[in-house]
Amino acid sequence: MTVEFVGLDGDDTLWRNEEYFLGTLAAFRGLIAPYVNGGIDIDERLEANERANLEFFGYGVKGYTLSLIETAIDVTDGRVTSDVVQALLDLGKGMLQQPVELIEGVAETIPILAERYKLIVVTKGDLWNQEQKLARSGLADLMFGVEIVAEKDLATYRRILHRYDIDPATFVMVGNSVRSDILPVLEAGGRAVHIPHELTWALEFAEHDGSVPTLASIKELPEWLEEHG
Amino acid sequence: MTVEFVGLDGDDTLWRNEEYFLGTLAAFRGLIAPYVNGGIDIDERLEANERANLEFFGYGVKGYTLSLIETAIDVTDGRVTSDVVQALLDLGKGMLQQPVELIEGVAETIPILAERYKLIVVTKGDLWNQEQKLARSGLADLMFGVEIVAEKDLATYRRILHRYDIDPATFVMVGNSVRSDILPVLEAGGRAVHIPHELTWALEFAEHDGSVPTLASIKELPEWLEEHG
Repeated sequence: MTVEFVGLDGDDTLWRNEEYFLGTLAAFRGLIAPYVNGGIDIDERLEANERANLEFFGYGVKGYTLSLIETAIDVTDGRVTSDVVQALLDLGKGMLQQPVELIEGVAETIPILAERYKLIVVTKGDLWNQEQKLARSGLADLMFGVEIVAEKDLATYRRILHRYDIDPATFVMVGNSVRSDILPVLEAGGRAVHIPHELTWALEFAEHDGSVPTLASIKELPEWLEEHG
Repeated sequence: MTVEFVGLDGDDTLWRNEEYFLGTLAAFRGLIAPYVNGGIDIDERLEANERANLEFFGYGVKGYTLSLIETAIDVTDGRVTSDVVQALLDLGKGMLQQPVELIEGVAETIPILAERYKLIVVTKGDLWNQEQKLARSGLADLMFGVEIVAEKDLATYRRILHRYDIDPATFVMVGNSVRSDILPVLEAGGRAVHIPHELTWALEFAEHDGSVPTLASIKELPEWLEEHG
């Protein structure tokens, strides 16, 4: 059936995101390095803490900042100073104030898509922060709907399809995360287009079997939808 | 016009909330007391930090925990130890794991309301946490809609009315916060019923002019709606 609705992932599909986390991670390593004994894998401990904290914090910068602080205490056996903790709080606030930088091709492609399809942003993370990012993106007025969700799983996509009364056969989801943007949408009966981003967070990692249409840039999306949608 | 939709606030209308923040605040004071010089008003400094951080963090437990940590560093001039910071992280996680305790009268009244009206929970705070609270409340299946929002202002209520295609004259919002549950709903053309809670957060404080219907308990709501709705 003809595509009527296009779902768009936010982070690392519409705007840059993961690189800011990596920038913060590099700063984090530098801040705590003087207090860490040799042989400790800081990244591994942070990832373990993020995984353990996910059930409490969910996704987003606030939970990440709390996990950074906890990891700083953890990997330094409590030797980390309050100066460093304050610096980590400031890193978190810096991420939350970050101007939104659109991914290449987004600014010119979204208006084209908006003329032909009903666009729905489907993004996860902190509600407050995601709303600010959408507002700062300048794209909000081109969107038919915005869904900021706690988790991008089958139940969430089913709820969204139901909410907008969408026949799954008319829905295509576009995003960089196979785990969040592709697999659950296929399970819900929709279609999905993968636009990989060079950086993917470990907790988002998944693969598809190669049968999912994959584009190098969102700039190719209007043509793909014309041909295959 | 006849009431068709009833909006229900979550925190301190359906389930207990503010008391857990106050319990955490008491624990916070105790934890940092040994490091604080005399003459410092801890509560005042915390409230000032919460206000200043609101634009970054929005509402909810994660931002509150970050503000507690920042205030601990601030009021102790950095003397607070990492043990205390870890204890604050644990307090935050404890709040996020808190079992949901329904306010008296909610468990028996919501099923009655759900038979007669379309119920929509309108709640703010961390998305992940609010979804967990709703799931733990046992009330989710009785709800026609759930709206977890970043801010409960005029724009938000207008968006919700539009989303469900609600004539404002058929909408009544019920909650404990005059600022968030009453005033913006009246401005949007709906009606509101105030059910005060004994505890109200300083940043939520507002008053109405006395003309807003005020009930002592949600148990009185079905009868009020019969008579006035």
